[in-house]
Amino acid sequence: ADGAPRYGLIGQMVAQPGKRDELVGYLREATGAMPGCLSYQIALDAGNADAIWITEIWDSRESHQASLKIPAVRAAIAKARPIIAAMPMHVETVPVANI
Amino acid sequence: ADGAPRYGLIGQMVAQPGKRDELVGYLREATGAMPGCLSYQIALDAGNADAIWITEIWDSRESHQASLKIPAVRAAIAKARPIIAAMPMHVETVPVANI
Repeated sequence: ADGAPRYGLIGQMVAQPGKRDELVGYLREATGAMPGCLSYQIALDAGNADAIWITEIWDSRESHQASLKIPAVRAAIAKARPIIAAMPMHVETVPVANI
Repeated sequence: ADGAPRYGLIGQMVAQPGKRDELVGYLREATGAMPGCLSYQIALDAGNADAIWITEIWDSRESHQASLKIPAVRAAIAKARPIIAAMPMHVETVPVANI
């Protein structure tokens, strides 16, 4: 329910030049089965050809932290890391509406 | 489908001091029935007691623009505007995954 305590993340990632689609592919791989992940949205930044935005909703901070230990997630992070040039924005949130 | 052309917005709004909950209330009012709105997420910024983030997915830019003319949306904007101190971030996106 909307009133439940939840944990969110909103972040911007900048890929190495020309590597944005590859980065999106790795992020998609990572999100196959993550317990407690209620929403995971990936969007291309219309104003920066190398940038993406990720908006996440989790049932708890603990579920997000646990996801980082899932083998498929660890493998995707390992592939993504070398093509991430920067993470200019990374904000923790408390989601209050998901319509 | 994830492959369809779509339009997204990610924005940060800062309310006048102490007015964040009121602002969230007006935004909720605005989002009751907006044709073409596929997702509308509101999240409190965990690091700024006056800030919120809005992540939107629309079927098209036109649907978003049309929503601004809906009477309930116009009414909510009119109530929200005086308590919005700033919109430091407002980014157009192309959503590519909504899991």
